[in-house]
Amino acid sequence: MPKIGPHLLEIEGLDREQIDFILDTASEFVKVNNRKVKKVPTLRGKTIINMFLEDSTRTRSSFEIAAKRLSADSINISSKGSSMNKGETLYDTAMTLEAMSPDIIVMRHPSPGAHHFLAKRLSNVKIVNAGDGLHAHPSQALLDALTIRSHFKRLDGLKIALVGDAFRARVARSNISLHKIYKNEITVVAPPTLAKKEFEDLGVKISYDLESGIKDADVVMSLRMKHEYLKDFFVPSLKEYARKYLLTEEVLEKYAPNSILLAPGPFVRGVEVSSSLIDGKRSFYKTQVNNGVAVRMAILFLLSVSNSNSVDMEEKLRL
Amino acid sequence: MPKIGPHLLEIEGLDREQIDFILDTASEFVKVNNRKVKKVPTLRGKTIINMFLEDSTRTRSSFEIAAKRLSADSINISSKGSSMNKGETLYDTAMTLEAMSPDIIVMRHPSPGAHHFLAKRLSNVKIVNAGDGLHAHPSQALLDALTIRSHFKRLDGLKIALVGDAFRARVARSNISLHKIYKNEITVVAPPTLAKKEFEDLGVKISYDLESGIKDADVVMSLRMKHEYLKDFFVPSLKEYARKYLLTEEVLEKYAPNSILLAPGPFVRGVEVSSSLIDGKRSFYKTQVNNGVAVRMAILFLLSVSNSNSVDMEEKLRL
Amino acid sequence: MPKIGPHLLEIEGLDREQIDFILDTASEFVKVNNRKVKKVPTLRGKTIINMFLEDSTRTRSSFEIAAKRLSADSINISSKGSSMNKGETLYDTAMTLEAMSPDIIVMRHPSPGAHHFLAKRLSNVKIVNAGDGLHAHPSQALLDALTIRSHFKRLDGLKIALVGDAFRARVARSNISLHKIYKNEITVVAPPTLAKKEFEDLGVKISYDLESGIKDADVVMSLRMKHEYLKDFFVPSLKEYARKYLLTEEVLEKYAPNSILLAPGPFVRGVEVSSSLIDGKRSFYKTQVNNGVAVRMAILFLLSVSNSNSVDMEEKLRL
Repeated sequence: MPKIGPHLLEIEGLDREQIDFILDTASEFVKVNNRKVKKVPTLRGKTIINMFLEDSTRTRSSFEIAAKRLSADSINISSKGSSMNKGETLYDTAMTLEAMSPDIIVMRHPSPGAHHFLAKRLSNVKIVNAGDGLHAHPSQALLDALTIRSHFKRLDGLKIALVGDAFRARVARSNISLHKIYKNEITVVAPPTLAKKEFEDLGVKISYDLESGIKDADVVMSLRMKHEYLKDFFVPSLKEYARKYLLTEEVLEKYAPNSILLAPGPFVRGVEVSSSLIDGKRSFYKTQVNNGVAVRMAILFLLSVSNSNSVDMEEKLRL
Repeated sequence: MPKIGPHLLEIEGLDREQIDFILDTASEFVKVNNRKVKKVPTLRGKTIINMFLEDSTRTRSSFEIAAKRLSADSINISSKGSSMNKGETLYDTAMTLEAMSPDIIVMRHPSPGAHHFLAKRLSNVKIVNAGDGLHAHPSQALLDALTIRSHFKRLDGLKIALVGDAFRARVARSNISLHKIYKNEITVVAPPTLAKKEFEDLGVKISYDLESGIKDADVVMSLRMKHEYLKDFFVPSLKEYARKYLLTEEVLEKYAPNSILLAPGPFVRGVEVSSSLIDGKRSFYKTQVNNGVAVRMAILFLLSVSNSNSVDMEEKLRL
Repeated sequence: MPKIGPHLLEIEGLDREQIDFILDTASEFVKVNNRKVKKVPTLRGKTIINMFLEDSTRTRSSFEIAAKRLSADSINISSKGSSMNKGETLYDTAMTLEAMSPDIIVMRHPSPGAHHFLAKRLSNVKIVNAGDGLHAHPSQALLDALTIRSHFKRLDGLKIALVGDAFRARVARSNISLHKIYKNEITVVAPPTLAKKEFEDLGVKISYDLESGIKDADVVMSLRMKHEYLKDFFVPSLKEYARKYLLTEEVLEKYAPNSILLAPGPFVRGVEVSSSLIDGKRSFYKTQVNNGVAVRMAILFLLSVSNSNSVDMEEKLRL
């Protein structure tokens, strides 16, 4: 049984066996979430701190629900109403929280290096990266992978197209890292200003054209066009973007007839995806969100038991 | 045993038997809240999301305490720190939350249609209206009804006077709907600018005069005069309002000697009610708040078990 | 067994026996917090409201973790998103919350009189002062005391030096009160603008000079220099302050070689304490934070059982 942990900072560094094991464990928790009593006593008496230093509804709620369904105590900390505006450094805040003996700190932070920095300096708490700046969002890539694997019954031999703002999407980077581990063929589809050359260095194809970019893809992933960056003139307007890159049922039917659509939210209908596509049968958006809770339960669970021996663990997995 | 649910959106649509049953169930939970261990395992393993998109202390706390005393997992979402300011629609936020498989979403939302809209479009989660714009606040009307019924030992044959800003009070509308079901005599007492004609269409009397309006009332309900609307010039000033409509011990003693005072908070002493009246023996304010937790426990409980057969339910009601 | 409660408003009014008992109880909870399952069922079915009307990360988290490790239901209320901006008074907010039958309200409030005011007027809920304006922060003084006692194996016969802004530090005042109960020798070390004469009236020595002020101290406590007050010109600049009063390993080694450093956070490295001192072996900062959770568990526990007879209590202390 592969060891997961002590931290989950990014996809890079995980191998196939570890990822498969996280997804296998998550599949068990999908079943728990379908039961009438969606709760297991597994992490009773554990304390999990959700420290979200950027706005988030879905990821924070998903981690909080995951913790509570595992019977852990869950504490929320946001940048508002905190003492971090009293001149305290991130390290001192985190070191202080660590001294309250939580088992895991789940953190969203605007700076890419923040999680590695804390993981290196704190020795008594495990760090989970719940999204950092432009860099990584590993739990999102894992829930996307679980969704893909459930549908195709495999995670390799696939063609993956990422459509939209891959440059400023931590989701894209974590997904690229994951699918490179499975040697999948990855194409980034975006306007030239967003499909930066550095993706080619990662062994990813770049296409400025939607139709050829998604051709015969198994998975089409829609990436959010962030309004807040519009002022940087990466695209003339969202309308202009949508005219060339809007994902619709018709275009998928024509160019990638066997594909599924993944849309790591939030999305804006009519900008990244058409309304009928996101609500249609190709869309696995709801499954992604549902798998998100299960994947996060798996992460919290596996990091918590990673010090136990494997017998204990088999026992615990029986739920 | 009457069926409650799947949603609780407004008082309209409930019948006497259903309301009586909710209040009977709430009475059981009043007892639980008086015990040393104020907790029952009834909703263990259920997830309840409190989504409050308008400021609220009392209603949010009341629902959260209710959920926790039923052993449900409770998740708070507010408009601050959420991703709804990333351009996401209410439907997409709610549909995303639904995919995390919560059992109930308790929502306060500024738009009256929001709860109906979601209830219609989401099929796997139950919606509870915790207040919407000017329209409805059903759990408040139910806790008021429980308070009235506990005192008078009946909920019909009563004279109800609503004093203050009934026009912009969701509490007033839900109370009017409820007391019409019980065929009670209802009078709205307010300045002409606030006591709109539409109340007459609802079969409610209107009085511009406090003394005659509350004459022989059994229940005098004080409605909040919202400071934030003062700029709309519905009343010249709160001082002016208070001079004509302030509820005092003296005025109730003289014109409605057998009445009880209900004051769905927050209120401002000296504007809607005098300090000695709110703290005095006619005031059932604290009982209202206390009943509020019990009524919300009843709502969450009854919606959760509404798919079970009645035998299960009897069982569960034993607590 | 000494009685604690009904409220915990300040250190003043407690005697040695009571403080010793709180610390003894906290020591038991330190052990709980070191276990793999950091949770006891002691306060199951109790409701604890954390009402923080000033920003706070560490104290709020500490109380919330404490409540959850005791299995109490914990409800957070902050000034943001509350109805207190609808013109409601503190009393009416608190009286409303009291009517929801919580067992304890833990409150941080900017006004020193707020906790006494509520304790006097509310009869069915216990109040814990989690910090008030400039006046008191009793749980902080108690966790400092536990840290000192664990190290020196006694709480009397000690020399205590408080360095920094004692004038506007509630922590300083509560610590002074506590150490006067144990007849310890207390020195406040600060610039003349901050070391006000009123400390002398409390029987505390004042020193404007760091070296002589901490001479032979057993405990050196660093007090936060609040940036937000800089505009009041109590010190010309933090740099100027640091030049004369910065606590370093060297200065402690030379003038107080047997001392330990306590730093009730948040602190700013290089202003109040040097980075190597706070991270070094003299620093008990992490122990303070860790003891903080245990002390708050003890406070919540002892206030909750204070109506029980002592036999019950012995029983409960077995955890």
